[in-house]
Amino acid sequence: MSLNWQNLDSTRAGIKILKWLKYHGVVSLASTLNERRIREYQVTTAADWTYNYAAKLVDDDVLHVLQELATEQQLVFKYESVLAGEVINTGEKRMVLHHLTRGQLGPDVIHQGKNLRHFYQGQLDAIFEFAEKVHSEKRFDHVVQIGIGGSDLGPRALYLALENYVRAHRGGLKLKAHFISNVDPDDAFAVLTELPLERTLFILVSKSGVTQETLANEKLVASYLEEKGLAPSNHMIAVTSETSPLANNPNYLASFYIDDYIGGRYSSTSAVGTTILSLALGVDVVREFLAGAHEADLRALEKDPLKNASLLDALIGVFERNGLNLPYTAILPYSQALQRFPAHLQQLDMESNGKSVNRFGTPLAYATGPVIFGEPGTNGQHSFYQLLHQGTDIVPLQFLGFLKAQQEKDITIDGSTSQTKLKANLAAQIVAFAMGKNDANPNKNFEGNRPSSLLYAPQLTPRALGALLAHYENKVMFQGFVWNINSFDQEGVQLGKVLTNDLLSGKTQNDALLSYARIMGI
Amino acid sequence: MSLNWQNLDSTRAGIKILKWLKYHGVVSLASTLNERRIREYQVTTAADWTYNYAAKLVDDDVLHVLQELATEQQLVFKYESVLAGEVINTGEKRMVLHHLTRGQLGPDVIHQGKNLRHFYQGQLDAIFEFAEKVHSEKRFDHVVQIGIGGSDLGPRALYLALENYVRAHRGGLKLKAHFISNVDPDDAFAVLTELPLERTLFILVSKSGVTQETLANEKLVASYLEEKGLAPSNHMIAVTSETSPLANNPNYLASFYIDDYIGGRYSSTSAVGTTILSLALGVDVVREFLAGAHEADLRALEKDPLKNASLLDALIGVFERNGLNLPYTAILPYSQALQRFPAHLQQLDMESNGKSVNRFGTPLAYATGPVIFGEPGTNGQHSFYQLLHQGTDIVPLQFLGFLKAQQEKDITIDGSTSQTKLKANLAAQIVAFAMGKNDANPNKNFEGNRPSSLLYAPQLTPRALGALLAHYENKVMFQGFVWNINSFDQEGVQLGKVLTNDLLSGKTQNDALLSYARIMGI
Repeated sequence: MSLNWQNLDSTRAGIKILKWLKYHGVVSLASTLNERRIREYQVTTAADWTYNYAAKLVDDDVLHVLQELATEQQLVFKYESVLAGEVINTGEKRMVLHHLTRGQLGPDVIHQGKNLRHFYQGQLDAIFEFAEKVHSEKRFDHVVQIGIGGSDLGPRALYLALENYVRAHRGGLKLKAHFISNVDPDDAFAVLTELPLERTLFILVSKSGVTQETLANEKLVASYLEEKGLAPSNHMIAVTSETSPLANNPNYLASFYIDDYIGGRYSSTSAVGTTILSLALGVDVVREFLAGAHEADLRALEKDPLKNASLLDALIGVFERNGLNLPYTAILPYSQALQRFPAHLQQLDMESNGKSVNRFGTPLAYATGPVIFGEPGTNGQHSFYQLLHQGTDIVPLQFLGFLKAQQEKDITIDGSTSQTKLKANLAAQIVAFAMGKNDANPNKNFEGNRPSSLLYAPQLTPRALGALLAHYENKVMFQGFVWNINSFDQEGVQLGKVLTNDLLSGKTQNDALLSYARIMGI
Repeated sequence: MSLNWQNLDSTRAGIKILKWLKYHGVVSLASTLNERRIREYQVTTAADWTYNYAAKLVDDDVLHVLQELATEQQLVFKYESVLAGEVINTGEKRMVLHHLTRGQLGPDVIHQGKNLRHFYQGQLDAIFEFAEKVHSEKRFDHVVQIGIGGSDLGPRALYLALENYVRAHRGGLKLKAHFISNVDPDDAFAVLTELPLERTLFILVSKSGVTQETLANEKLVASYLEEKGLAPSNHMIAVTSETSPLANNPNYLASFYIDDYIGGRYSSTSAVGTTILSLALGVDVVREFLAGAHEADLRALEKDPLKNASLLDALIGVFERNGLNLPYTAILPYSQALQRFPAHLQQLDMESNGKSVNRFGTPLAYATGPVIFGEPGTNGQHSFYQLLHQGTDIVPLQFLGFLKAQQEKDITIDGSTSQTKLKANLAAQIVAFAMGKNDANPNKNFEGNRPSSLLYAPQLTPRALGALLAHYENKVMFQGFVWNINSFDQEGVQLGKVLTNDLLSGKTQNDALLSYARIMGI
């Protein structure tokens, strides 16, 4: 088999999906959602996760077309080619190797004589060694990540997801973690003024070494440390690439490296994420987290979508986007620990698949990545769920749930624990969205047939979190293959950077830009 | 003039808007966005805010139709009737009086012999007195709000918006604030285990007094306090309605009241928000915040949309939704202090206007409230902006910006401060979205004509924040009037509650609900 890159509307199955509403009805969940469907329309995957799609607007006919699409678009074969080190990021002429940061599933990937699995593993070993040294020396109580985008959203979401798990089950945090990301000076000072600086370690994270916000914040932090009589070089480490201007700088306590084959939004399992997670949560926690991600990568190799959760999740998303014409997806974790996970997925998905040309630069005639948003349940129920239930448009949903609470502390009130109430709300929402309710008062009427899926696991452990992260990374990758786009570049973020620098350097002649600068007092 | 409630598609201007794309072109920003347009297409409003709409897809023809629509739908007259105590929330047969919590612009509103402005003012006076007593007694260092939805999102977003302003300009926080909202027990325990309980005051906030999550969390907190040898009655106050089961309970240190005429998502300026804000930030800060909101309410009375920022913002949003068929709006504050403000607006807007029947219960043939999402810039630039710039769909944007940073601490690097970099990024993004860039490489091509507006102010002060909050409340209200929906009920949240209670009480016979309960281990 050879790689065949083709547009969705060049495939037989894709054409069927794009014309679905013209030739086919939509499944009625009110009449089909029953015990048998709920039992059968699910697939187990890594780290004891299960993906249940019984409340999605699919039936065996739809699933059959999606299976055809997976074959026609060679989805698993293309994933294997990623693992084998093909240059999948064609725009930037780069391999895509984040899977290699957590294990190896393909052949050795050798670049310029270097085995890249060994390189990533070597960095991880060095990070673990450094973290354990920091833990044993007890010089620091706090660690602050200075980074933005992929160097912020993923690591921050993951830290928050495990902070209380580690407190409850691993004898407490090793260090408390904080994050400075925004170039807004109020962000950095809000963090700095609350910390005992002599007990704080900073991690400067920029793959390129030229990220405007991160370099400004580094200098801001360094000058603040100096102002307080502290030497920045005793308080700062760096995560960057070996070719960046930050590399091999003796002014950092330590430096750890990634390379061009790890995209920012896919870098949570590389040094970008594992440095702060190891320092804050401990080395064992990171090992389990990486093992969970690797396990999910392995499961994503299964060719039949009905046995491959990330592949099926991707395909159902394509059906909703291109078959049912729904332009958004809400991510609804029933776990407060996942409070920032939707923000990470927003980046992962929208930055990867928010593209309108294919991987050869040809404009596409079909929709690609949707808008992603979400907040934890049950909070969202008291907020935007009104529109989800009764708005004029349908928003596809994905619920996340856990059988056990993370801290395993609870209280029974009116015959049920809080965790049981949480899960009961989750179950009730799926059914309410799917089946609706007829009411003589139109204001209290629920049309139903609003689709949702459910990803559930026994508990939000480090291993489960790793598997969840990799599930979404692989889902987004598969969708990019379906749409025939390059999910691994981000040219859309460049123009704003260029105009910003033109303005700051006084080079711009753009009348509109100068006018906005004037009203903003620049 | 008498109130005339009619659907958008019953108005002459509304019909023009609904058919806009059929008979009219879309403005080309690349050819029209210049210094003059940027200077002219803006309107100043309360607390020195300016609303600039030069980069929206409107021209004088569109604005003229929007002016007609404002007249035909009696938008300001309907607002005046809200202020006068008309029963605008017809579904629940209630007045809508949140404006009265921050001042009075209409006649006295008397209900059952009670002047309701006096009632709200009396509660505020009592809250201020209590807060000052707490501050002088110095018994507490921390205050925790226990509430969900409107009792959480608004107060939390507002506290975070002013926390560092108060630290920098008012000699520090009076108390540090925390929030427990989710029924997920991990939420409450994450907060509780980090606090010195003997120095912590809790505020139980539930208008109805029967909110499942809030009552569960109250009992959880009370039992935790008892476990630590503390009497809950020495550590807890209540904010509720006088008719709720929580009212007049001597087990609370103090109780403050709202009533049925203050909707949850509109309650930030009532006791629901002012109690925690007064305790944490101080009475003077709350006074200024309320004055800012009142000032914006006053400005919203102006009849000409071109002189009324919240009205014009509302109308342009309607044009984007019903004229240009764009189903979402992103809120992009260039201020880290506003990190949770988009989540509050998500509730305010989507819960108010996510409706598909009009105020008389008739199904609507046009789209109503959009999906709202957003994150602070510059962070979002490194995340989902890729899709905003180059995705297949167009997302209308609203930027928020400030001339000065909140803490007024900064550093100059490469010739500019961080605040200047922040503002330069903002200006550059507006221009990049509007004007795009032609590139021979289609992957680096930006089509442009992606609309945005800019709300900007000198600094994020308490007064500016109050005005911003009221701007959006009034915007959402005006849009509800245009669409002829009831923006003040939320029947769409009821079905999930009923199904949850049926499940927890063992009453349900619903096969699907029982099946989901089973797989979730209930």
